[in-house]
Amino acid sequence: MPGIITIMTDFGLRDGYVGEMKGVILGIAPQARIVDITHLIGPQNVLEAAVTFNRSAPSFPEGTIHLCVVDPGVGTARRPIAARLGAQRFVGPDNGLLTLLLARARRERWPVEIVHLDQPRYWRAQISPVFHGRDLFAPVAAHLAASPGAALSDVGSPIDDPVLLPLALPERTADGVRGAVMHIDHFGNVATNLRAEDLAGPGDVIVCACGAEVRGLAQTFGERPPGDLIALFNSHGELELAVVNGNAGQRLGAKVGDPVEVTRR
Amino acid sequence: MPGIITIMTDFGLRDGYVGEMKGVILGIAPQARIVDITHLIGPQNVLEAAVTFNRSAPSFPEGTIHLCVVDPGVGTARRPIAARLGAQRFVGPDNGLLTLLLARARRERWPVEIVHLDQPRYWRAQISPVFHGRDLFAPVAAHLAASPGAALSDVGSPIDDPVLLPLALPERTADGVRGAVMHIDHFGNVATNLRAEDLAGPGDVIVCACGAEVRGLAQTFGERPPGDLIALFNSHGELELAVVNGNAGQRLGAKVGDPVEVTRR
Amino acid sequence: MPGIITIMTDFGLRDGYVGEMKGVILGIAPQARIVDITHLIGPQNVLEAAVTFNRSAPSFPEGTIHLCVVDPGVGTARRPIAARLGAQRFVGPDNGLLTLLLARARRERWPVEIVHLDQPRYWRAQISPVFHGRDLFAPVAAHLAASPGAALSDVGSPIDDPVLLPLALPERTADGVRGAVMHIDHFGNVATNLRAEDLAGPGDVIVCACGAEVRGLAQTFGERPPGDLIALFNSHGELELAVVNGNAGQRLGAKVGDPVEVTRR
Repeated sequence: MPGIITIMTDFGLRDGYVGEMKGVILGIAPQARIVDITHLIGPQNVLEAAVTFNRSAPSFPEGTIHLCVVDPGVGTARRPIAARLGAQRFVGPDNGLLTLLLARARRERWPVEIVHLDQPRYWRAQISPVFHGRDLFAPVAAHLAASPGAALSDVGSPIDDPVLLPLALPERTADGVRGAVMHIDHFGNVATNLRAEDLAGPGDVIVCACGAEVRGLAQTFGERPPGDLIALFNSHGELELAVVNGNAGQRLGAKVGDPVEVTRR
Repeated sequence: MPGIITIMTDFGLRDGYVGEMKGVILGIAPQARIVDITHLIGPQNVLEAAVTFNRSAPSFPEGTIHLCVVDPGVGTARRPIAARLGAQRFVGPDNGLLTLLLARARRERWPVEIVHLDQPRYWRAQISPVFHGRDLFAPVAAHLAASPGAALSDVGSPIDDPVLLPLALPERTADGVRGAVMHIDHFGNVATNLRAEDLAGPGDVIVCACGAEVRGLAQTFGERPPGDLIALFNSHGELELAVVNGNAGQRLGAKVGDPVEVTRR
Repeated sequence: MPGIITIMTDFGLRDGYVGEMKGVILGIAPQARIVDITHLIGPQNVLEAAVTFNRSAPSFPEGTIHLCVVDPGVGTARRPIAARLGAQRFVGPDNGLLTLLLARARRERWPVEIVHLDQPRYWRAQISPVFHGRDLFAPVAAHLAASPGAALSDVGSPIDDPVLLPLALPERTADGVRGAVMHIDHFGNVATNLRAEDLAGPGDVIVCACGAEVRGLAQTFGERPPGDLIALFNSHGELELAVVNGNAGQRLGAKVGDPVEVTRR
């Protein structure tokens, strides 16, 4: 079975940068299956990439290699790393991209291994200080995909201090829980860092965010009339605000980081 | 020969949703060839998806499976379906996405078979009520691609009442025919629901739409000077208005549904 | 090893046009590996495509076939062509798309061969005069990919007068060199047609463009504070202006063609 390499970047879609990475990969691992996650991560937005990586990785099979290049520190002292989280691997800069999935790995006791990529023999001969995605990370991912038996220790030296992003965690309040907006998607759905286990059992709730209040949770969009503001658990288990056939992010003027309060009804 | 699965959605390109569907597919059908049609269908715009599906499917080889997920009714009582239209198959929600291609299939007497996807053993174990694309449709398409001998009756029960969109059909007028704008593309080319057979034989015509009038038909863009508004048959056989090296949709202020009149010159 | 076909167009991402080309390719060359370079070349912007092609092709392995369809002259007398530049091939319209890579091929004495695609037996049976990308170029590229031994002379007749774009070349000035802006990327990085060899040896320089002046060259973005305007060599060896974690194109109001002066400090 050919190895799968996913790619996530903030490179956009107008230039040939992502294509160049794929050319390098296919030169080393001609059988690799390459899957784009997104290339529209906001420029230098490591948190957005970390959220998207944490959401998308679990849908991929064992053995998948995730290449994530949102890399404002390219060419500086920030380390290039690779990691094994359970049965999948990650290749990218050491700037916090792993933060959320690593938290889950620790919670669920997946085996974790992280290495500093310090073996230039797996890189391209010439390394541009501004495009490690093409010259360093893509070749390492391709070598791993091309050699099913390759160990992370072949491509780097163990580390145990990866950079982690400071994450706002849900906080108990007098009558419920306070979280924050984590992601606003293409549809304008406003996802939070609150999950079912944060809502303290069944029973109706009131969700307050951005000046709006929603009573009760829906199961899905189409059970309410178009234009209604609803709260529901999205497909990643996150509490989310949505407008049926509309754009909640725009209606609420929501931004990542905005507080979200949930209380008992 | 590995099975081909095309994907069309309204999920946009900023999030990892399409990537998640591909991860699920490759977990079931590692050899599947996945081709993106577009993920920029307007949110919940089933008609736009139906038009795009009808245009793009015929360029694909026999055996192709088309996965279309524009699904405002996800998680409600709307049926998940699969269909065979001639030598290709479709997997998606029962909301009218098949309308145009089904009309063509009936016109050209392709064999047609439609099933209600009611066999959860072909789905993921956990089904989010808001992401059947990932949890139901992608796995079904992957199972069909992975098992060349699989019959639609394995994955669902026959139905004969698929949801169809109401379509504006061309109407004869006293001195010609009246149609409507069906699609405006990336270049601003304004395609109609009128085809050569609707124009009643050869001879010059006058095309009126959005307050503009075009006399005669061009064969292609570059035969007229940049900036000229022209009418021609596009690569799908549809009568189209275009501005040479420009944007007819913007110049005309055209919208899908606008009337288009064709008369004899 | 399956043949690689890259695709670059100005077709955008909303329609199914690129998907149709891929459907045609996979019908002829089911094993072809297809890689998107970009489909967001500005409509009819042959220069932008030529710049992007020149940048991206070198990252692909020997044997890669590059399908480039930015084709304002589709269906007119402009010739469809294929070319061999070193160990890679190109298929597309004869309108200057090859200009920059051909200049490099001549400089580096790669073998070059160009043919006029005049063998309709390698095309689709029906050719729309407005979509040679799908009906002519995609099938030719697929035939070449599917037949590793195929020669360009099988698909066309030799020519030696390809259309070339007029290119602004760097000019010596009294105290340095004058070039021009060649490309502004997704990040707003402003790339020029000046390379290290144009800057006449080491030593500090002053770069003036769009009313701004930058003293000295940086190695990479992160060595300066966010918001700083810097000059550096980008990953294609081009002198580039950038704003650290910002958008130089917007800040400078830069446009392709704007003059850039470099003098000794």
